[in-house]
Amino acid sequence: MNANDFTIASVGIPEEQSPLRGIKFVADEDRVLDSSLLSDLKLRSGSPAASSLEKAGPRRRVFFPPGNAKAAILTAGGLCPGLNDVIKGVVNTLCTGYGLKSVLGIRYGYRGLARHGEFQPLPLDPDVVDDIHSHGGTILGSSRGHQDIGEMADSLVSMGVDMLFCVGGDGTLRGARLLADELLRRKLPIAVVGIPKTIDNDISFTDRSFGFETAVYATNSVIEAAHAEAKGAFNGIGLVKLMGRESGFIAAFATLANSVVNYCFVPESPIVLDGENGFLPHLFRRLERKRHAVIVVAEGAGQEFFKAARGADKSGNVIFNDIGIFLKTEIAKFAKKNSAEVNIKYFDPSYMIRSGDAIGTDAVFCIMLAQNAVHAATAGKTSMMIGHHNGEFVHVPLSLATSARKKLDVDGPVWQSVLEITGQNKP
Amino acid sequence: MNANDFTIASVGIPEEQSPLRGIKFVADEDRVLDSSLLSDLKLRSGSPAASSLEKAGPRRRVFFPPGNAKAAILTAGGLCPGLNDVIKGVVNTLCTGYGLKSVLGIRYGYRGLARHGEFQPLPLDPDVVDDIHSHGGTILGSSRGHQDIGEMADSLVSMGVDMLFCVGGDGTLRGARLLADELLRRKLPIAVVGIPKTIDNDISFTDRSFGFETAVYATNSVIEAAHAEAKGAFNGIGLVKLMGRESGFIAAFATLANSVVNYCFVPESPIVLDGENGFLPHLFRRLERKRHAVIVVAEGAGQEFFKAARGADKSGNVIFNDIGIFLKTEIAKFAKKNSAEVNIKYFDPSYMIRSGDAIGTDAVFCIMLAQNAVHAATAGKTSMMIGHHNGEFVHVPLSLATSARKKLDVDGPVWQSVLEITGQNKP
Amino acid sequence: MNANDFTIASVGIPEEQSPLRGIKFVADEDRVLDSSLLSDLKLRSGSPAASSLEKAGPRRRVFFPPGNAKAAILTAGGLCPGLNDVIKGVVNTLCTGYGLKSVLGIRYGYRGLARHGEFQPLPLDPDVVDDIHSHGGTILGSSRGHQDIGEMADSLVSMGVDMLFCVGGDGTLRGARLLADELLRRKLPIAVVGIPKTIDNDISFTDRSFGFETAVYATNSVIEAAHAEAKGAFNGIGLVKLMGRESGFIAAFATLANSVVNYCFVPESPIVLDGENGFLPHLFRRLERKRHAVIVVAEGAGQEFFKAARGADKSGNVIFNDIGIFLKTEIAKFAKKNSAEVNIKYFDPSYMIRSGDAIGTDAVFCIMLAQNAVHAATAGKTSMMIGHHNGEFVHVPLSLATSARKKLDVDGPVWQSVLEITGQNKP
Amino acid sequence: MNANDFTIASVGIPEEQSPLRGIKFVADEDRVLDSSLLSDLKLRSGSPAASSLEKAGPRRRVFFPPGNAKAAILTAGGLCPGLNDVIKGVVNTLCTGYGLKSVLGIRYGYRGLARHGEFQPLPLDPDVVDDIHSHGGTILGSSRGHQDIGEMADSLVSMGVDMLFCVGGDGTLRGARLLADELLRRKLPIAVVGIPKTIDNDISFTDRSFGFETAVYATNSVIEAAHAEAKGAFNGIGLVKLMGRESGFIAAFATLANSVVNYCFVPESPIVLDGENGFLPHLFRRLERKRHAVIVVAEGAGQEFFKAARGADKSGNVIFNDIGIFLKTEIAKFAKKNSAEVNIKYFDPSYMIRSGDAIGTDAVFCIMLAQNAVHAATAGKTSMMIGHHNGEFVHVPLSLATSARKKLDVDGPVWQSVLEITGQNKP
Repeated sequence: MNANDFTIASVGIPEEQSPLRGIKFVADEDRVLDSSLLSDLKLRSGSPAASSLEKAGPRRRVFFPPGNAKAAILTAGGLCPGLNDVIKGVVNTLCTGYGLKSVLGIRYGYRGLARHGEFQPLPLDPDVVDDIHSHGGTILGSSRGHQDIGEMADSLVSMGVDMLFCVGGDGTLRGARLLADELLRRKLPIAVVGIPKTIDNDISFTDRSFGFETAVYATNSVIEAAHAEAKGAFNGIGLVKLMGRESGFIAAFATLANSVVNYCFVPESPIVLDGENGFLPHLFRRLERKRHAVIVVAEGAGQEFFKAARGADKSGNVIFNDIGIFLKTEIAKFAKKNSAEVNIKYFDPSYMIRSGDAIGTDAVFCIMLAQNAVHAATAGKTSMMIGHHNGEFVHVPLSLATSARKKLDVDGPVWQSVLEITGQNKP
Repeated sequence: MNANDFTIASVGIPEEQSPLRGIKFVADEDRVLDSSLLSDLKLRSGSPAASSLEKAGPRRRVFFPPGNAKAAILTAGGLCPGLNDVIKGVVNTLCTGYGLKSVLGIRYGYRGLARHGEFQPLPLDPDVVDDIHSHGGTILGSSRGHQDIGEMADSLVSMGVDMLFCVGGDGTLRGARLLADELLRRKLPIAVVGIPKTIDNDISFTDRSFGFETAVYATNSVIEAAHAEAKGAFNGIGLVKLMGRESGFIAAFATLANSVVNYCFVPESPIVLDGENGFLPHLFRRLERKRHAVIVVAEGAGQEFFKAARGADKSGNVIFNDIGIFLKTEIAKFAKKNSAEVNIKYFDPSYMIRSGDAIGTDAVFCIMLAQNAVHAATAGKTSMMIGHHNGEFVHVPLSLATSARKKLDVDGPVWQSVLEITGQNKP
Repeated sequence: MNANDFTIASVGIPEEQSPLRGIKFVADEDRVLDSSLLSDLKLRSGSPAASSLEKAGPRRRVFFPPGNAKAAILTAGGLCPGLNDVIKGVVNTLCTGYGLKSVLGIRYGYRGLARHGEFQPLPLDPDVVDDIHSHGGTILGSSRGHQDIGEMADSLVSMGVDMLFCVGGDGTLRGARLLADELLRRKLPIAVVGIPKTIDNDISFTDRSFGFETAVYATNSVIEAAHAEAKGAFNGIGLVKLMGRESGFIAAFATLANSVVNYCFVPESPIVLDGENGFLPHLFRRLERKRHAVIVVAEGAGQEFFKAARGADKSGNVIFNDIGIFLKTEIAKFAKKNSAEVNIKYFDPSYMIRSGDAIGTDAVFCIMLAQNAVHAATAGKTSMMIGHHNGEFVHVPLSLATSARKKLDVDGPVWQSVLEITGQNKP
Repeated sequence: MNANDFTIASVGIPEEQSPLRGIKFVADEDRVLDSSLLSDLKLRSGSPAASSLEKAGPRRRVFFPPGNAKAAILTAGGLCPGLNDVIKGVVNTLCTGYGLKSVLGIRYGYRGLARHGEFQPLPLDPDVVDDIHSHGGTILGSSRGHQDIGEMADSLVSMGVDMLFCVGGDGTLRGARLLADELLRRKLPIAVVGIPKTIDNDISFTDRSFGFETAVYATNSVIEAAHAEAKGAFNGIGLVKLMGRESGFIAAFATLANSVVNYCFVPESPIVLDGENGFLPHLFRRLERKRHAVIVVAEGAGQEFFKAARGADKSGNVIFNDIGIFLKTEIAKFAKKNSAEVNIKYFDPSYMIRSGDAIGTDAVFCIMLAQNAVHAATAGKTSMMIGHHNGEFVHVPLSLATSARKKLDVDGPVWQSVLEITGQNKP
């Protein structure tokens, strides 16, 4: 985690020419601990520097001369609330803060970068992006799947781009790392900076990700609908499948945010259907008592039930069997076997959760991510992304960020709170 | 349409004992024309009275003695925004306006009425219903399907009910009519009053139905999501299936309310897929030009494509093949045949549209429906429902209301506006 | 109400050149009755034609040659939800339906028309207005106050405008009428068509006005806030002042839509503060029992308390003393006199109610108003506005529309429902 | 910051009787660093323990015997989104987690505690609180002002309360500390645990406070309204006063969350009105260019303009002169002096911002705060509150929490981002 690993150069324009006069600068020596626990600190007391990350923020020395530098931005992968806020933040900070005239908006993710002749980039400036924050989606379009790294590097050279901002998830960040490596290999001083996008909140070394707060907020209307449908029928069940392929953060937070949920299932904890304390007998005991139930299940939960070989989508994401449909079927079978009646209403709202515009503090987070990404790129950082850790924005090498998915700690406070609230593991 | 057809009796308590002193009364002779067009009037100039409906409102003479009367209310069929507002309105008007202590809330529709021993009615009073308007669904629960008319009549007698309020759609109102007939046959002075519930707005002799405004409002978030997804991908298509089995009112209004919709399909107008001006070539010409499209389809549209025999659900509603899935498949096939790329995102939000609480003027409409239903029942009307016609609340005999479904007039202003806005039938 | 009063000419382009082929036309002979009550009809049985209005809709004969005609639109007076929908509807119908290339967007109401050199009009076309419906306010800007009629007529001539659409309230429509008169006096074939804008719903001969539904919807959050504040304190009172200078429609509908309101005051019914059944003793009896109360008051209510001479704002609207502050003070004085405690929270949300974008069926209404206004203007109608009456869009001569304010009928169903719901006039 | 300072006793029921079997416990030795910066750590390397806080969570040893213990909860001070979530969380955790039958809900804050005979406590259990999270406000009511500490201690004794949860701001927490001290002085084993409530986010030693996220979210509609009004008039200005007496967090976050804001003023940074770079000339230069502006001002900003002596409200909060009205007046004066036109619309939405129900992740935070408060109290902790620090819930001694207000760091990333986004301090 050495800062120099991902800095193009330590030189730059003379400080007195910096467009940032008046701003408080952050130095590369300002570092943020990677744990806030005293016990972790004691264990590593020999080498505290090894367990810290560079603090993000405006740098005194600007590498790319303001005014002349050329920047591009792309969004890749699935939609996520806040994409347009991030685009707006990057464009405004580059143009207003660093004096660029405009920024190239690459169409349809890496696909538009590899084939920039076919998909003409959009020229972006503060007027163009003025109002985009009030709309969900991404004005640039997005795509999934890999593109040829060499072609993308060639495109950057032919467009004369100095800084590329890649907004995307795990796959996108891996692509950004390969691209940055290729540029370094070619000795091209082009900065590639990642902005982590994961509505599932499953990227490592960032304790927060944009769109997540909005997604949790957006679960309210669907869970309220499931609750109304459940209570509206005899032995009514509202079954809601939420996003979360590898990690159950959305499902767990949605359960805590909407305290009408009675059962929550996440990828990190196996589902036990049968037996004395199994889910199905537990559910029907509840129906006997309350005549309705609301169930939330993350799309990646219960994959243990699907043993068959699985394919992968264009981006390489493993395709999952549908746990929502599976649970619906199992509940109906159990009811039939026990001559019980159930009225199940199934909800699969994923596109509706991810397509809205970012709300409140989530939008704030987008803007600050974008500002810090611009500060990093203009300072000559590359092959890194902006993370948020222990209350601070930090620089995270892409090698580190893509090393492992972040998971919900089943012994940690969030999942323990879910168990306390739902009582789903109590007799 | 003779008023006496559905009045139990013209006697009642002496006027000076009416609990409604101070209120402005409506007389049975106050009638509302069934058409507002001058041309209709001229055609029928011989007998204008034949083409009018009794105006709703508080009656001078109250049939059931206030204080002693007993009332019950039930909700049947699918959820609809405003059910709880109607329940609250009926309970408050009966208790506050007419001096009843409480009202029986029959559980799970006709099922709970037929088996009131098994499903204990909820005692409702203004305190119990104080806050229910802020929640979607129905606090009473609902059910589909027919019940034995005789058993239901017996239940009313054994519970001592004088007035029954049935909130439901076409099937529910047919049931109410049969029940009222049976009670008249038995010479029992029990009033059965319908409150039409049709989120699809497809009940005849009411130009407005509660929940419809809220449903149209609720389509906004899903259509915005479809638009964001469509614009977020190359040749992106957002395909939204909305409610509307027999009538396309929700789809048509949703298209006008959200002017990002490019194609709208309703049951009243056949879908032409192929040919020069067919939908599929039209769609791909648009994609070539705009790179995205939003499509709204009513669930009952395009049934001409499904020739096979169809079943019926428990209430007797015909079960439809899924036009949404059908269109999705046809678009994908056409794209493949023409070596074009499409990225289709499919939205099926029906439960989410119908489960919310009624908003604004829709909630107002619920309360006024409820008040007028209570005024009618206490005045001894039966086998009728409250409708809204030409700007006035009216009494509609159930025989008339259930005679035919209301349909969107494809030559009328709403559908013509849809065609103007979408341009879907222009070259 | 003779149609010819407000038609520039009965000639026009040959029907086979009409851009509207395929559309269902409406004839000038299609007329809508002005009352739906049978009793009204009988009274006037001698001359039914006198009590009807021309039905709106596309006309077979187009007066202004499509392609060559020039149109302009302006918005005047206070903001109202739906202004941008109306602008979008007018522009899209003119451009897509009638083949105009663009429409002049006059800035800041009549002020920009009188001084169009100073305030350059915005050129509007379907691309420019594509997204404006999702924002409140008006992209054209607005202003209050009168302008010189001659200067405005001169402007229209110098810009070569054939059709002017004036979106505004009572004052704006009076201005439109004077302008149309001046143009007729000068024998200029320029159509002036009004689109009534009145969030208060107080314009005659239109039973509905755009923005009203949205305004009623928007009262929900403030009334819920008032309720929360009232219940959150001992003897807590939430006092909400809503719009409604001359008419109490918003206050009355807000009371019915949000059934937590305990008292509602409107301009049409005087406020009685003291005496056995006066508001103040009634309120404190309620506080004794319930410990909180919510009060809604229209800004024009209780003007009988303000006897002093009053001024007028720039548009000539009478300036009112503040009934909200007055009630707050009177309640506090009464509490002090009776040694009672009250905790009053005062809410004055007017700008927040009127600045949002139109929702659902309200947005539908805007589009249909706009389409019908364009159909009327292109057919050569002038000095008229589009109204909505007895379920139909109609042509209303401006002389008729501006003759009197529409008022809430205190003997009608809406106000009677308010009294039933609140019980505010019961002991 | 010694844990024993605020623990009643280290004894308790035998572990095998704990109601929490199966839960992951936290030990008192688990501590959280108070800074996440490496530099802070190095400075204090001698005594890291001194700069850490006890980690919150379920304790192995329960002090109050489950089943027999008696708990009470009160809410004090102004409304804040999430109060009902906190109440629900405390009641559910006590009853479901620790086996209490019910919890006493003290009415109207300390006032109801001091006079519990006059204001009968509400008995709360999971059924009573089931639905309260969907409403803003507090079901218990609240009050401001001090009460006699001895009387409150007497009340607790006479009601037999073992654990008191005080939800409130700075003043409430000071009261809780005095009460806890009095109870310790009397050697009464009664736990007093604070749950910090500060919509302004200005309590020290908690980096997050419930209601804040919702408040920032709620600013959206008013700032959008201000923007619409500003753009709707020539030289239109939307001026919005937001909460924030001592700290400008809401104003700063609202500015970042709604990127239409052009000027933001907070208590932490003085307002310079005049001079070359003063606000007024800057504003009018902007109006000349853009014809509209949106201004956000925290209620506590610019207090330097008000030199006169100030009073204090019942809780001892200093009463501020109105900076919103002051700015409005100064802008109008400046316009007049310079013969410029301005159209100012002033928004003061404070009650509307604070009265809603908590949304999404904010509601999650409420529940987790409540759970941790219950874990602390049942473990015998007193005179402390639950905070959130460096990503963990922690125990904060009340002496520490009430020692100083948290302020926005004008050199930190949030305020720097505001300056970058608005450009308000650039020429």
